[in-house]
Order: sequence, then C-alpha cells, then structure tokens
Amino acid sequence: MTPLLTKYKDVRSQTRDICRPLKTEDYVVQPVADVSPPKWHLGHTTWFFEAMILKPFLQGYIPFNPDFDFVFNSYYESLGARVIRTQRGNLSRPSVDEVNHYRDHVDQAMEMLLVQEVNEQVATLVTLGCHHEQQHQELLWTDIKFILGHNPLFPAYEENFIGKTELPEHPTPVIEVKGGVYPIGFSGDGFCFDNELERHKVYLQDFSISGALVTNEEFLEFIDDDGYLNFAHWHAEGWDWVRNNSVSAPLYWHKIDNRWFHYTLGGLKPLRRDAALGHVSYYEASAFAAWKGKRLPTEFEWEVSSEHFRWGERWEWTESAYLPYPGFKRSPGAIGEYNGKFMVNQKVLRGASLFTPSGHSRNTYRNFFHPHLRWQLTGIRLAQ
Amino acid sequence: MTPLLTKYKDVRSQTRDICRPLKTEDYVVQPVADVSPPKWHLGHTTWFFEAMILKPFLQGYIPFNPDFDFVFNSYYESLGARVIRTQRGNLSRPSVDEVNHYRDHVDQAMEMLLVQEVNEQVATLVTLGCHHEQQHQELLWTDIKFILGHNPLFPAYEENFIGKTELPEHPTPVIEVKGGVYPIGFSGDGFCFDNELERHKVYLQDFSISGALVTNEEFLEFIDDDGYLNFAHWHAEGWDWVRNNSVSAPLYWHKIDNRWFHYTLGGLKPLRRDAALGHVSYYEASAFAAWKGKRLPTEFEWEVSSEHFRWGERWEWTESAYLPYPGFKRSPGAIGEYNGKFMVNQKVLRGASLFTPSGHSRNTYRNFFHPHLRWQLTGIRLAQ
Amino acid sequence: MTPLLTKYKDVRSQTRDICRPLKTEDYVVQPVADVSPPKWHLGHTTWFFEAMILKPFLQGYIPFNPDFDFVFNSYYESLGARVIRTQRGNLSRPSVDEVNHYRDHVDQAMEMLLVQEVNEQVATLVTLGCHHEQQHQELLWTDIKFILGHNPLFPAYEENFIGKTELPEHPTPVIEVKGGVYPIGFSGDGFCFDNELERHKVYLQDFSISGALVTNEEFLEFIDDDGYLNFAHWHAEGWDWVRNNSVSAPLYWHKIDNRWFHYTLGGLKPLRRDAALGHVSYYEASAFAAWKGKRLPTEFEWEVSSEHFRWGERWEWTESAYLPYPGFKRSPGAIGEYNGKFMVNQKVLRGASLFTPSGHSRNTYRNFFHPHLRWQLTGIRLAQ
Amino acid sequence: MTPLLTKYKDVRSQTRDICRPLKTEDYVVQPVADVSPPKWHLGHTTWFFEAMILKPFLQGYIPFNPDFDFVFNSYYESLGARVIRTQRGNLSRPSVDEVNHYRDHVDQAMEMLLVQEVNEQVATLVTLGCHHEQQHQELLWTDIKFILGHNPLFPAYEENFIGKTELPEHPTPVIEVKGGVYPIGFSGDGFCFDNELERHKVYLQDFSISGALVTNEEFLEFIDDDGYLNFAHWHAEGWDWVRNNSVSAPLYWHKIDNRWFHYTLGGLKPLRRDAALGHVSYYEASAFAAWKGKRLPTEFEWEVSSEHFRWGERWEWTESAYLPYPGFKRSPGAIGEYNGKFMVNQKVLRGASLFTPSGHSRNTYRNFFHPHLRWQLTGIRLAQ
Repeated sequence: MTPLLTKYKDVRSQTRDICRPLKTEDYVVQPVADVSPPKWHLGHTTWFFEAMILKPFLQGYIPFNPDFDFVFNSYYESLGARVIRTQRGNLSRPSVDEVNHYRDHVDQAMEMLLVQEVNEQVATLVTLGCHHEQQHQELLWTDIKFILGHNPLFPAYEENFIGKTELPEHPTPVIEVKGGVYPIGFSGDGFCFDNELERHKVYLQDFSISGALVTNEEFLEFIDDDGYLNFAHWHAEGWDWVRNNSVSAPLYWHKIDNRWFHYTLGGLKPLRRDAALGHVSYYEASAFAAWKGKRLPTEFEWEVSSEHFRWGERWEWTESAYLPYPGFKRSPGAIGEYNGKFMVNQKVLRGASLFTPSGHSRNTYRNFFHPHLRWQLTGIRLAQ
Repeated sequence: MTPLLTKYKDVRSQTRDICRPLKTEDYVVQPVADVSPPKWHLGHTTWFFEAMILKPFLQGYIPFNPDFDFVFNSYYESLGARVIRTQRGNLSRPSVDEVNHYRDHVDQAMEMLLVQEVNEQVATLVTLGCHHEQQHQELLWTDIKFILGHNPLFPAYEENFIGKTELPEHPTPVIEVKGGVYPIGFSGDGFCFDNELERHKVYLQDFSISGALVTNEEFLEFIDDDGYLNFAHWHAEGWDWVRNNSVSAPLYWHKIDNRWFHYTLGGLKPLRRDAALGHVSYYEASAFAAWKGKRLPTEFEWEVSSEHFRWGERWEWTESAYLPYPGFKRSPGAIGEYNGKFMVNQKVLRGASLFTPSGHSRNTYRNFFHPHLRWQLTGIRLAQ
Repeated sequence: MTPLLTKYKDVRSQTRDICRPLKTEDYVVQPVADVSPPKWHLGHTTWFFEAMILKPFLQGYIPFNPDFDFVFNSYYESLGARVIRTQRGNLSRPSVDEVNHYRDHVDQAMEMLLVQEVNEQVATLVTLGCHHEQQHQELLWTDIKFILGHNPLFPAYEENFIGKTELPEHPTPVIEVKGGVYPIGFSGDGFCFDNELERHKVYLQDFSISGALVTNEEFLEFIDDDGYLNFAHWHAEGWDWVRNNSVSAPLYWHKIDNRWFHYTLGGLKPLRRDAALGHVSYYEASAFAAWKGKRLPTEFEWEVSSEHFRWGERWEWTESAYLPYPGFKRSPGAIGEYNGKFMVNQKVLRGASLFTPSGHSRNTYRNFFHPHLRWQLTGIRLAQ
Repeated sequence: MTPLLTKYKDVRSQTRDICRPLKTEDYVVQPVADVSPPKWHLGHTTWFFEAMILKPFLQGYIPFNPDFDFVFNSYYESLGARVIRTQRGNLSRPSVDEVNHYRDHVDQAMEMLLVQEVNEQVATLVTLGCHHEQQHQELLWTDIKFILGHNPLFPAYEENFIGKTELPEHPTPVIEVKGGVYPIGFSGDGFCFDNELERHKVYLQDFSISGALVTNEEFLEFIDDDGYLNFAHWHAEGWDWVRNNSVSAPLYWHKIDNRWFHYTLGGLKPLRRDAALGHVSYYEASAFAAWKGKRLPTEFEWEVSSEHFRWGERWEWTESAYLPYPGFKRSPGAIGEYNGKFMVNQKVLRGASLFTPSGHSRNTYRNFFHPHLRWQLTGIRLAQ
C-alpha cells in the first residue's frame, strides 16, 4: 500500500469513527445555518474526492449518483448548482445508508487510483482532500455537540466521554518579545493551505503574551462584574449582538438553581472552574480583554511567540482580520475557491482545538470565522 | 374489548401503518414551518392522550418522560411551555424508537383505562383524541408528501403507490338551489367538533354549484391564458403572494422539457389531465374562479347542496372566512384551545380529501387554513 | 355653478383646511407603512381626478407632470408602475408647494369640465372621486395624529384642539332584536360604494347589542385584570401580536408616574375615563369582549339594529370578515380595483368616527382593516 | 476674536452654506438607514458641542431643549437613550426652523466661551468638535446626493452645480516602492484622530501602486466583460451582495436607451468616460482589481507612497481591515466611543473626496466603512 493510500484510508476511517455513537436521526438535522447535518459532512467530503480527483483523473470512473453533485457541493460556484446551505437539514434523503454506500463506492475507486504511484498534481489534490476531510472532522465534532447540546433532552454523545475539554489550565509565565522584523507564513516541505503563503516579513513592536489560556474562573469574574451589561467593554456590533441575542454567558453554559453547568459531549456537567474557557465569540473575547485592560494578540504576534507556550486546546481568537498575505495567489479553477473568496469580514484564529485531528494543525495554520460565531471550541489568550 | 377500546386501537394502528414505508431519516425533517416531522406527529398524538386523559383520569399513571410535555405540546398555552413550532425539525431526539416506546407505554395505559366502561367525560375525550389523531393522519400523509416531494431526488413513498389522487373527474350536471332559509351545522348524536355548533339558520340567495371538481385540464387552460401573470384575477394579497414566491403552477407541478409532471407518492409522474386538480391555495382557487367568470361557493351553499354531488376527494376552498357560528362557546380549559382561537384570517374548506381517514369527515365538518397554503390536497368547485 | 362643481370645490377645500396647521416637515414623513405622508394624500387624491376623469374625458387636458403617475398612484395595477408604498416617506420631492400647484392645476381643469352639465358616467366618477377624497381626509387626520403622536416631542396639531374624541359616553339601554330574515345592503338613490351591493337577505338569530360604546374606564378594568397577560382571552394570532409587539395598552396611551395619559391632537392629556375607548385593534376588541363574556356583533346585526343606537364616533370592529355580498360584481378597469381585491384577511368595521367627514358615512357603509391595525379611531360595541 | 473662535465660526457657517439650496422637505427624509436627514446632521453637530463642551464647561449654560439629547445623540451609549438610527427620518419635529434656532443658541454660548482663551482640554474638544462637524459636512453632501439622486424626479441640488466630480483623470506613471521598514501613523503637532496613533513601524514588501485612479472608461470595460456576472472575481459575500441586490453598475449609474448616464448634484448627466470612477463598494473595487489581475493597496502601502501621487478626489478603498494601531488607547468617557468601538468588520479608506472640506484630511487619516457601502464618493487605485 502506498503511503498516500494509507494516509487516505486512515483519514477516511477516522470520520466514520466519530459518527459511530450517533443515532440515525442525529445525522439529519441542521439547527442553525452554520451547523451542517453529519450526513452532509459524510457526503460532502466524499464528493470532494469524486469531483476533484476521480472524475478528472480516474479513467472510466462511474459517478455514484449524478444528483449528488447538487446535494453535496458546499460552495463551489465553478462546479454547478447546489442545495442552498440553509436547506441541508430539510433533506431526509439520501439516507445514511446510501451515503455510506457512496463513501464505499468512492473509497474503492480511490483505492484503484492510489494503489500505484500517482503524479504530483493528483498527489497534491489527494493530500488536500485529506486535510479537507480533517477540517470536516473537526466540524463534525462541533456540529454534533451543537445538535445534541441544543436538544431539550441534553443527550450525551457518549455517557463516558472523557472530558478532554476539562483539562486544568496551569499558571504559566508571561512571554516577552522584543520588537523587530520577523518572518511569517509557512516554510518547509510539508502540506500547507494557500492562505499560509507567501512567507514574508512583518515588523512587530515589543509585546508580551500570556503563556496560559483564560479559564472559566476568570471569565466568571467578568460575568459577575456585569461584563455583559456594560457597553464600554464592547465593540458597537458586539454590543448589538449581545442585546439582540440576549447573550449572558458562553455557549453551552446554563445556570441552574444558581449553579453553573455546561453541556459537554458526556452530557450536562458542573462547570470546572480551572479549565480553559471555550465557546466564546470574538466579541466576547475582545470585551473580556478590554475589561482586563489588555488586548488580543495579532496573528503575527501569536505565530512568532508560539514556540514559547503550549497550544492546541482551543482555537484562539486574534485581533487580526483574515486577509491575504503579500503575494497570495488564488489557484485557477475550483480549488481557487477554497480560501481566497472568504477574505473579508472574518477574524483569524490560531492554534488548534481538542477537536482538531492530530497532525492537522501547525503554528502557521490560519483558521477563520465571523466574529459572532462560537460553536467552535474557541478560547482566549491575552496580550499587551 | 369495549367498542371505545376497539376504536382507539384501530386509529392508533392506522397511524403506524402510514409510517411503515418511511426511512428513519424521513421522520425527522421539517422543510417548512407548516410541515411537522412525522416523528413529531407520532409523539404529539400520543401526548394528547397522556396529557388530556391519562394524567387527569388514570390513577397511578406514571408519565413516560416529563420532558416530553415540552417536546410534544403543539399550541396549548394552558399546558405549559413548548418547543416553538419552527424548531421541531431541529430535534434529533427523542429518536423514532423512543417515540414508539412512548406510544406503547401510552397505549398500554389507555388499554388499562378502557378495558372497562368509562364515564362520559372520559369517553368524550377519548373520542376527541381519536378524531385528533385522524386529523394528524391526514397531516402525516401531506407532510410526508411535502418532505419527499421537495427532496431533489424525488424519492417515492412507495414505488407502487396507486395514485388514488389520479381518479378521473366525470362530467356532472350543475346543481341549482332555490333561495331561502336553511339549517346549518351539525345535528344528531355522533361526534362533531365544537366549531360545527350551534346548528342555526342561514338565508341563502338562489345559487348554482358545479357537480364536479375543476380538473388539471381546466387549470392548464388558466395557466396557458397567462392566468398567473394577470393581476386582474387576483386579490391584492394573492398577487403579492404570486410575485414574492414566483408561483406559476400548483404545488408539485414541474414542467420538464415542455411536458407537465407532478410529484405523487409514487414518484414523479406525467400529469393526468382528466383528474381533479389538487394542491392549490385559496388565492389560486379564487383567481381561477374569477377568470372563469364564476366564484367559489360559501360554506353554507356547499353544506346545503352537498347531498347532490360526490365529494371527499379534495378539500374544497370556500369563500367563507372561518368564524364562530352563532352561539359558539369555547370549552373551559385546554380543550377550549382546540378550535376557537384560530377563528381569524383563515378560510373554511369543506369536504374531505383522499388522504382523510375514512369515517372522519361529514358534510358539516369545517376544515380551515390560511389562504396561501396548499400542501393539503385542496381543490376547487365553482359556484355562481 | 353646478351642484356637482359646488360639491367638488367643497370637498377639495376641506382637504386643505385639515392641513393648514401643519409645518412643511409634517407633510413628508411616513413613520410606518400604513401611514402615508400628508403630501402624498394631497397628491394622490388629485391624481385620482386627473387619471380617472381629466385624461379620459377632458379634451386637450395637459397633465401637470407625467412623472406624477408614478409618484401618486396608490395601488392601481391597471394604471402602471408606482412608488412602492413603503417608499412614500423617502421622497422629499415634489415639494409641498409643487403638490399645491398640482392641486390648483387639476382644480382649474375640473372646473372647466364641471362648469356645465356632464354625462352620467363622468358625474358618477366625480362623485366617486369626492368620496375617495373624503376617505383620504379621514386618513389625513389619523396619519397626522400618528406622525405627531409618535414624535418624542409630542407636538400638538393645534394647542386648542377641542378634544371631540373626549365626549363622555352615556349609559344606554341594551337593544334586543328578534331573529328572522332581514334586508342588508344599500338601497335608495344616493351614492354608495360597490361593496355595499347587492342588497340581499340575511337570517339573524335573536341577539342583543349594547346601546353604548365601551369606555376607557371599562377598558382600564381589563388592563388591571391582566387582560393583556392572559392568553385565554385572545386569538392565537392576537396573542402573538401582543407578545411580539409588547402591547399593554391602546395606541397613544402612556402611563407616566403611575397616571394614564393619552396623546390627542391637542397634545398629551390625562385620560378621560368616561369617554369612549379608541385606537384598539380587532384583537384587543375581541379579547375584551371575551373577557366580558360577550362578543362583537356581526356587521349584519350592527346594520339591522343601528337605528336604535347613536353611532358615528368610532369605527366599530365587527366579527364579520370582509367578503363580497351575494351578487357583488367588480367593475371593469381601474375602478374595479377599488374594493374587491381587498376582500380577504380583513375585518369589517361599521359606523364612522369623529374624523369622518360629515355626510360621508351611512349605516350600510363597510369599512375594513387588517385585524392588528389601530391607528384609526376604532372602538368597541358589545353584543350577545 | 480668538483663532479658535474664528475656526469655529468658519466651520459652522460652511455647514449652513451646504444646506442653502435645499427645500425644507429635503431636510427631513432618510431613504436608507445609512443616510441621515440633513436636519439631523444640523442638530447632531450642534448637540455635540452642547453635550461635550457647553454643559460640562460653560457655567450657567441653559440647554436649549432637554429632549434634544434624545433626538440628536448618534451613538454615545454613555450619554443616554436616543432615537434609534432607522427612526431619524420619521421625525417631522423639531422643524428646520427650530433646529436653526438651536444652532444659534449654541453658537452664542460657544462664542461666550471662546471669546477668551480656554484651557487645553476645552480647546482640544472644540477642535475635535470642528473636525466632527467637517466629517458631517461630507456626510451632508453624500446624504443630500442620495436623497435627491434616489427621487424618481431626479431633482438637481443646483442646476449649475459644476461637476467637480467630473475632472478627467490623466495618465500617470506607476510608482515603485522598495520593501523595508516604514513609519506609519500621525506625527507632528496638529490635530489628528485617535485612530491615527500610535505612530509605529511596519514592514512592507516591494510593491508598485498606480499614480492614477481607475476611470469610468476602465470600469465600463469590466461591465462589458460581464464582470458583474462572473463569480470568479468576487468575494463570496460580495457575490451574494451582487445577486441579492441585483447590482449591475456603480451607484447613480443609469442605462437609458443604451447610453450611460449618472446622477450628479447638477441632475442626471451623460457619463463622462475619462473621469475618475466613484460610488463603488469595496466588493466592486476588489472584483475589479481581481479582473485586472491586480489588487488593492494596503493602507500602509498607500500612506508610504502617497507623496508620489495626487490624491483627494475619491476616498480610496484599501485591502486593510479597520483595526487599532499598536498602542492604540480608547479615551475614557464618551469621547472614547468616537472611533475604537467600530474596529471590526470595516475596511479602511484613505485619501479624501471632492466632498471633503478643505483642510480636513491628511495622508494619515483613516476613514472606514462597511464593505458594501457606496454612497460615499469612493474610488479605486490599483496596486501590485
């Protein structure tokens, strides 16, 4: 078996593993537009391989079902019409079984293709497809959590799910960095996304950055100091978001009989105060920092100092807007729609979360979301 | 077995029969607010018996799951908080299996209660619950049709589903009725809903009413004469509805390569032109009538003349608004919320449809919907 | 001067009299879609004469400005494109001066036409135009009240405006009417709208109807008994309306330092408790009646009993939906759009209000509004 | 007269000069939320001096009308409740006359204050108030243009308004800049806004920037090449904006009988092809640049190279998001709400436009708008 095929099979089986504890019904629903049905993730990641690799490069490949292009295209305008995003949860068909057959069909064809050496163009696309599927593995975790965590019955994903999200955050010294010109962006031979390039220079002023993430305990102090009620800490748009949505705590937090609980994949549990905070929006992260008299780091400060602190448990909001690096070029064709067309109105997050597949992130990885979103496992690291 | 228990078991098993061909995924989705997930219908009809009968009248009854009140209450303000209607399709749990266990649990308790004679109050409520479940059986049919018929794959409910909706409509003479005072409303001993009472007198002018329903053929003439493009036939609100929703044909009609098809529970089929028209809104019914130089009958004209024509294949739009009859009284408590609170901004439909459970309708039955809705099997009968 | 010309000049000058106390700025704004800028009323009523009479019937008539068709058409699809209703308040031009010149221009042409006898078709249209303008006079009053009454400065229309809306309502005996067949609809030689025809028979059951309108005092009892907080009194749609709009009192009522005030055209004044209630929606009227254990009359009951009570101070909500009378026919052409196309989802009001121009109403007049509206001077009369 | 008073009177009289050609009605309307009624600008700029300077610093000052705080506060949460932004156009009162009296009242009090030397804190606030009023002068121009330019009658602001916006754009060489560390931000003694500070270092890569703005001619080529119809040029959000709003040309452009016109303050005029393009959104600017195979400059590239090209006719979109400079600090109190709370989801524009008051801009000035807005006189300069 070629290393690429091994990699492919590995990634594909991880996706199914994540879904194993689900009931059929859990695969279907889409409680909000940003959360896709697990069934859709299973189909879409498969369609990516079919549309980008099998159709153009495997001679004689017979598509599983031509209508699936319409059902499982996410946002590729160049690849034809598609179900609009908000309608994904309205489709009971294809059934989970059919989607699994689709996966088998594509996996067999991919195996035929990868059993021998492929040219570099195909290899690059397969690698991209694997990373793409890993991104959706993370989304699977967070979408499943949203689906179950917003159900009035609060069902557990697995009763004995070990709350890895519950690790205590240990006191860590602040890191001081001297101003100067620093290199930014990916270098080396491995895989990276196009948005991590070109590697280029950035001038940073002197700054300091916390070695530890903000904890639930610290955020409770913000709440108890009426942080959600005082506009002075907030961006104008953040303040509107707070009031229009009656936000008064991070996502999944519930105050019951005056005690704080939060929904975890193991069910509703008492909040562990010394654990790192998760599931906050950029607006909340920024307001918390302002209340502390500090600020969020830029993505450049984060990247430059990242070797000096432990990261990988939370995606960390930065102050940086998601913009192209100097010299960034969109690829031609559908692949060019992967990242570039989202480079407006979003914020960069750095790091990785406990839901990120191992080996999927690096310190040049640029994640991005709109500032009000918080269904990802997002946290806060302060700078100054 | 008491006759009431027989009736109860009969109705309950019909509900399950309707769902038998469904895949688990089909039970879950809610493509639009008016269409509930089949799973919800199964639970809600069960909850009705639990909340209205078992809890107050069966001593020692242990509710299956106290959270189900929140999940399966439809609109009874007097029975506590509930999942808002538009959120029903966001709930993957309780699963279909759990809902079926809930049905079993309630059925066993109901059997305990009904195995011997019950007092009149309970008997009345059981009868109401059975009629309530029959109403939801009809909704099950139409909601399933909507769910499958709006899926881009157009799956059949049953491949060999005999298109009972396809019966040809035979030419029938027009019925002439003389003006005068007529009795309206239910009389007799059997069951009726509160909105069919009090029986009272109505004066009708001379009128004539068609013995036959409008056919697909006739409606195609309206389309071909640009009926959807000429505001003169339409109410102002109907015209807005047509333009805002780009309506150009009845629901489920598709023009493919210049031929008309429609979705049926047996899949996408060529339109049968001599069959009775279905799935039109009041706005379309009224515009069609105006185009013909005719009008829709009032519900009183319909009731008075109903013995002279065949009915029962389509719910038939009338010109009448849904209003209380003289002397109408809301019952006290939750049962009083059944009908009365909807008596504004809706139109009366008379008759029954091919999806109506047998024995559920009568010529005094008053169905009602908002004028833009057409996912029910609604048709047109003209008057003059 | 012909009587028709006298009538015309009379009506036209009344419109200007209503506007005399306004500042130029008051002519321009449209705080909600239902309230048109006074400037628009001045132009639209003028356009009605120009479009319906001068253009087709006065040879050599030169339109004032061809663009005004676009600006001042209200809802006549057959007369071309138009500014959409919600945009009326976005137009600073034509200025008030220009609109007044437009009125002068049309008045001079109308005088040329009416200085001699005209044929019956024209005479009928002129009469319709005058009644149309009187309808807009009433709207001018209520729209001006809305514009000034929703300004945070609460400016008076006229400081010394005698609150005719403040007349005390005197105790009056209840009227009992025997069941039987009654004639309904306009008869006689004078003017009536098409929706008052055909005169026809209706069967009424025995009923009683109050000789007096509901007073502010009585409605305060409803408020104090938590009438706005108890869903049991309300239609489902009414209850949604109350909660979505946080309604807790009639329009224009303000509770300041625990005392009730209401905005009148003379400014903000203490509420007079013995005056007839005004500015309630159908939902409120119906909820109040339910709370009282009574109901609203039908429009037929109202018409039949109207000679036995004093009316004309409030438009009175009825239980009747706005539907065509038996034999109702839409006129061909633009005039046919006057009434018929609104006959769905609206409620009939009977009577007249203190804002209605004298001579404009009669006991067969059918006013109609959507059930949530209350910027007209709407009141409640109870029946049983 | 002190220099500060001279400056004050100068700025204040310029505001009135801008409004002189308006009709009273033009002061009142608000066609979209972003465009405020001119009357509101007149009042709000006055209120700024009253609230920030006269009330705290002029002993014995009597406010003109305490309700005006509610009417004329724009967005200062720390200064109390206010009319919500979308409601500004619903207020006919205070009238234009009253607002002018308000201006006189405040001007007299300011003159009393400024006739002698004031301390530095007051002097700084007066200067800020003057710059604030100059910002609103520019908004007055663009809001007036929007109000008149969206009226179906297309009235001119002044018939003989010299189209300064029509200056031809001359061919100019491209400027090449070497990479390296550059200083960014305001330095010197004069006035600047807080968002231009701290001055700091930025590393720039080699880049080139056009000496000239994009012309109407060039943009027509984009249109003729179906630029608005090809998603490949657009951000995903830009593409949604194009389709949801049916955008097919810059704001104020109209194609009439196959010829291009645009609305100017002198009325509707044929488009001058060699003039600089104006009234495009960031989305259009970015799509045009992508179509050209170029990009927009960053705000840093723009600032560093600005001495080498002529600027000041268009606000120029940059690729930079509006973010705080390193070391940026919000002032305490209401003044701190001036800029900082808007630093999310907006784009920086550099330069100035032909509507900018002379002396108001500088090459470190950071203007900012949401990416879809185009009622400002916004243009495009390309970089590479």
